[in-house]
Amino acid sequence: MLVVMKAQATPEQIQAVCEHIEQLGFRPHPLPGAQRTAIGITGNQGEVDRGNLESLPGVAEVIRVSKAYKLASRDVKEEDTVVRFAGTDATIGGRELAIVAGPCSIENRTQAFAIAEALAKAGAQFFRGGAYKPRTSPYAFQGLGLEALKIMAEIRDRFGMRIITEALDVESLERTAEWADVIQIGARNMQNFSLLRMAGRLRMPVLIKRGMSATLEEFLMAAEYVMSEGNYQVILCERGVRTFSDHARNTLDLSIVPALKRVSHLPILVDPSHGTGRRDSVLPMARAAVACGADGVMVEVHDHPEIALSDGPQSIYPAQFASMMNDLEQIAPVVGRRLPRGIDVAAAAQ
Amino acid sequence: MLVVMKAQATPEQIQAVCEHIEQLGFRPHPLPGAQRTAIGITGNQGEVDRGNLESLPGVAEVIRVSKAYKLASRDVKEEDTVVRFAGTDATIGGRELAIVAGPCSIENRTQAFAIAEALAKAGAQFFRGGAYKPRTSPYAFQGLGLEALKIMAEIRDRFGMRIITEALDVESLERTAEWADVIQIGARNMQNFSLLRMAGRLRMPVLIKRGMSATLEEFLMAAEYVMSEGNYQVILCERGVRTFSDHARNTLDLSIVPALKRVSHLPILVDPSHGTGRRDSVLPMARAAVACGADGVMVEVHDHPEIALSDGPQSIYPAQFASMMNDLEQIAPVVGRRLPRGIDVAAAAQ
Amino acid sequence: MLVVMKAQATPEQIQAVCEHIEQLGFRPHPLPGAQRTAIGITGNQGEVDRGNLESLPGVAEVIRVSKAYKLASRDVKEEDTVVRFAGTDATIGGRELAIVAGPCSIENRTQAFAIAEALAKAGAQFFRGGAYKPRTSPYAFQGLGLEALKIMAEIRDRFGMRIITEALDVESLERTAEWADVIQIGARNMQNFSLLRMAGRLRMPVLIKRGMSATLEEFLMAAEYVMSEGNYQVILCERGVRTFSDHARNTLDLSIVPALKRVSHLPILVDPSHGTGRRDSVLPMARAAVACGADGVMVEVHDHPEIALSDGPQSIYPAQFASMMNDLEQIAPVVGRRLPRGIDVAAAAQ
Amino acid sequence: MLVVMKAQATPEQIQAVCEHIEQLGFRPHPLPGAQRTAIGITGNQGEVDRGNLESLPGVAEVIRVSKAYKLASRDVKEEDTVVRFAGTDATIGGRELAIVAGPCSIENRTQAFAIAEALAKAGAQFFRGGAYKPRTSPYAFQGLGLEALKIMAEIRDRFGMRIITEALDVESLERTAEWADVIQIGARNMQNFSLLRMAGRLRMPVLIKRGMSATLEEFLMAAEYVMSEGNYQVILCERGVRTFSDHARNTLDLSIVPALKRVSHLPILVDPSHGTGRRDSVLPMARAAVACGADGVMVEVHDHPEIALSDGPQSIYPAQFASMMNDLEQIAPVVGRRLPRGIDVAAAAQ
Repeated sequence: MLVVMKAQATPEQIQAVCEHIEQLGFRPHPLPGAQRTAIGITGNQGEVDRGNLESLPGVAEVIRVSKAYKLASRDVKEEDTVVRFAGTDATIGGRELAIVAGPCSIENRTQAFAIAEALAKAGAQFFRGGAYKPRTSPYAFQGLGLEALKIMAEIRDRFGMRIITEALDVESLERTAEWADVIQIGARNMQNFSLLRMAGRLRMPVLIKRGMSATLEEFLMAAEYVMSEGNYQVILCERGVRTFSDHARNTLDLSIVPALKRVSHLPILVDPSHGTGRRDSVLPMARAAVACGADGVMVEVHDHPEIALSDGPQSIYPAQFASMMNDLEQIAPVVGRRLPRGIDVAAAAQ
Repeated sequence: MLVVMKAQATPEQIQAVCEHIEQLGFRPHPLPGAQRTAIGITGNQGEVDRGNLESLPGVAEVIRVSKAYKLASRDVKEEDTVVRFAGTDATIGGRELAIVAGPCSIENRTQAFAIAEALAKAGAQFFRGGAYKPRTSPYAFQGLGLEALKIMAEIRDRFGMRIITEALDVESLERTAEWADVIQIGARNMQNFSLLRMAGRLRMPVLIKRGMSATLEEFLMAAEYVMSEGNYQVILCERGVRTFSDHARNTLDLSIVPALKRVSHLPILVDPSHGTGRRDSVLPMARAAVACGADGVMVEVHDHPEIALSDGPQSIYPAQFASMMNDLEQIAPVVGRRLPRGIDVAAAAQ
Repeated sequence: MLVVMKAQATPEQIQAVCEHIEQLGFRPHPLPGAQRTAIGITGNQGEVDRGNLESLPGVAEVIRVSKAYKLASRDVKEEDTVVRFAGTDATIGGRELAIVAGPCSIENRTQAFAIAEALAKAGAQFFRGGAYKPRTSPYAFQGLGLEALKIMAEIRDRFGMRIITEALDVESLERTAEWADVIQIGARNMQNFSLLRMAGRLRMPVLIKRGMSATLEEFLMAAEYVMSEGNYQVILCERGVRTFSDHARNTLDLSIVPALKRVSHLPILVDPSHGTGRRDSVLPMARAAVACGADGVMVEVHDHPEIALSDGPQSIYPAQFASMMNDLEQIAPVVGRRLPRGIDVAAAAQ
Repeated sequence: MLVVMKAQATPEQIQAVCEHIEQLGFRPHPLPGAQRTAIGITGNQGEVDRGNLESLPGVAEVIRVSKAYKLASRDVKEEDTVVRFAGTDATIGGRELAIVAGPCSIENRTQAFAIAEALAKAGAQFFRGGAYKPRTSPYAFQGLGLEALKIMAEIRDRFGMRIITEALDVESLERTAEWADVIQIGARNMQNFSLLRMAGRLRMPVLIKRGMSATLEEFLMAAEYVMSEGNYQVILCERGVRTFSDHARNTLDLSIVPALKRVSHLPILVDPSHGTGRRDSVLPMARAAVACGADGVMVEVHDHPEIALSDGPQSIYPAQFASMMNDLEQIAPVVGRRLPRGIDVAAAAQ
């Protein structure tokens, strides 16, 4: 259910509607738009009686949302969601493309700083690096944990890039929430509903990677779990799905980008590194991602991929990253976007 | 790495080898077999030096395990793992088929008892019922939680069936570990490595359902996560994978049963209810599961599936369950198995 | 559209209805049933006017068939189709299971006869062998062609088995129609509509293998192509579909068996050899196929699979075939079936 | 096997090597390159003896080609294949992108001409239209056949566009070879090896669409079938594969574009119409196709898609096509390509 307020509705009227919804045992989600505010209603106690709601002051109409996802739906919020970061002009979902880059894992301070410096100079505004790694084998390198988070916090201070890193469970979620700027929920946890709910209780951006066999609806339902807890700063990320196709590690399903744009207001990034698993496919697919309307790309970059502790074969070199930025700069205007202005690395370090 | 002890090795010698392994910074996993004990070595600090190990008293040989999964591998333990339950003769993985049945969700005491009574009479030794439900929608019924666990504990007391139920996170794992007999890790959490590790620290059986797009190796690596923490009572469960095929909810991949039997000693059940999503396919596929060598089946049964709070269309009626038992009784001998003797319901209730 | 005739309708009335349908520019398909005859109407000139049809003598009712497949649908013909072979009591789709076996390719007379003799003795009533092989590589062995057909005709004469072999195109279709008893359309040609139509113009049984990514509806539409040309002796064969799953060559989708039985009257066999690609999975999956209701199995058997010119790794040994027959004999009664009486090999050779 | 000739080898020496290869019972495939000629050797009679070949005049070296595909491999021919069309400067695989457009089916002369005129004006150099349609249902519109071919021949005369249309079997292949410029082999026939061989005996370009579940290697082996018969003018076309993903009709696997470019010299087009099945996804995915390195796109355009006899929902309007051309013009230079100069429609009609 969605309560659409009149354009001239007052904050007090909005507040009164929210309280009324709570008294009925449901949860109100006020979603301010450019023209008017809408209030999503969620809860699993059955159907809301629309009669009383429609008669409250300031209410324009009450609409039934037919899709399984509600808060993530464009029916509920028509304008694109733009995730903003205080103290910077970096955005995800705005007119400027979001460029996220970094090594698969933070291996040590030297490695991380070397890569970060190259990325910042080339114009990345978001630095990604694994601190807590979900590894198929219990015997594989599991990440440096807190130590990696601290290194990335230093990188933020030094280069001005915002930090995106993955959380796996209660403990790592608390830690990453403390040290990073965006919490990533990995593909393997896309239906870890308990983790999604916890992320929903944070008040910071959450990036959800598509599960390996998730449908569009399941992907948006993962977002809905986070949003149903009141956290609306959700970013989606396509990273390839699992199919019979064997020329790449996964099958990058770029056509989900326009499909998502039709039905949801959430920003969608594309990760061509996991999506293909091959260094020489990353640039072509990053270009394709922007060309089909993605809000940005997330790529793995390593200065010595041949000795990387994880995902070396899919990590590009810093020089390739710079080349990618050059390509994206040219493609962006075709889809009404532009690259962000580079961070002033020297100034950021002040 | 695997240390194979001589047939006549003493407990002290085994103990000494384990201590030596620990001193090297690795973890020893003594795995008693019919003829001799083998000691698996795990840890992610690189390769063990086999030289010293081979010279320890009682050691027959030291073998490199080439597969990614070690403790789950038949190379490490040749005999089939049989999971036993104290105070009963129910087993999973033994000569007798394990029959697990119950409603998708525990909805209330009356419903649960009615179904349980029918199942116990028809010969089920394991009762399954959802207390904590992983639902695609945050707005759907999420299970009765602790209340459901208590109802199932009563069912165990009343009918003698062992209880299998799913855990989703830290809290539900602690609760289910307290009240149930087997902890189920659901398909969506098959690569929730944090949850798997926690389950590995329990000393009770863990049933892992195959993820929707998990390969055989990934499935066994999930088991390996549990086993690497010292819990070797792992049961696998095939429940259908996701494909293009649309005549069933999932594509039940029965051929993984003989494939798993070749490479692993762990028991494997089949869930034809989730595997097909259609009531009228459950019996045929349950028969097929036993015919191809599964150690048992797990089926959803509901006395009024048309009003079930979840998964009604795939739940069979109690009378169909009885019919299934009759069919399986006839197929079992073809594959060297038999149905368990029925529980004496009256006696169990004493 | 389907015209259901009254139980007491005369052959002349049936004939008159068929002629009327032809005059309307459509094609009538009289389908005799146990109680009454139904007449399917096909054609792509739009909708038939049911008014006049209902008033013709002997017509009980005219029904719209809503599914895309019409003649293959159980709505049009309720009784199971049983394919019979003149001069033998072998059937496909009847109470007796159809057992089809033979080498992937006919390599020479000696090999074919050695295998055929073992199979006939063990009770196979159908001999399969490739004469024209659809090979992924143009440089691979393409089959002996006519020579292989002649060898198989000799095998029929000597051992009494009926011959099933694949046709690829106009030329091989004409040849196989002349020499064999059942024409196989392979998985790669399941949507070779031109070939299907040609097979529909024959008046002999056609076995259609499921395409590697065919849905149930597409599979039945392939049958519909053959039937729309007036050839109703169609046999379906599940042989595994292509998925991400990598423990087997294909993913044998056994749950299509009960799904097909619900909606179609056509017999369905299962090929566990192509379905798994692994010798040691063939027997378990053959048992499972019968257990879930298949009308028979089709397996590759080779006396020296290690030197087979094609598909050696999935061919079972003659002794395994005998063992399979023993297993199937025990499972058959559980699903109301039985194994065919063995062919009297000596008598057949008279 | 591949015989690499010396740069200064004479035509007579090349001819002599070819004759020698034929005498050995193999087939020579002379492949002229920018620097030197290579001669591919195919045949299924086992291994060629390289010794004698290396000693022939003009031979530089003899190389074993390890991949299953030989003539399609970049190991055998390093330079990109460029398909040219006599009497025009249209190419496929050259620096200029190939833009193929037209209705799914030719429905009548008026429809075809209206669409063709709009496309020619907007700069398409290739007109596609179905004359012989592979339809899932035998009762669906099967195409106008020869009549459609004649209409398209008129369109070529009138607007100067080259004609691409699909052949299904012997008869339609002969007809299309007579009337069209490029023969299309559809996805359902990608492994119709008999049809591929026939196409290989033609001396005109053949466009092969990827099968719905074809791997990269199988796709190239289909090309190899055509090339092994001596027809090297092969064009590949990605058109989406079948997966669990349900937000689009197929899953467009764009990452096969860079993967193919690495291993093969053949041109690759992308069909976003079949690839997505949704009009509003066609433009985004066409842009993405060019951005990731495709040699062109193939799109369905219809002036009244709501009344199209086939594939209406995925056909774009002529105005969208013009918009697409505008987008592609901007993206092309980023990948070192450009749009073809428009055909001078007036001049072409002279």
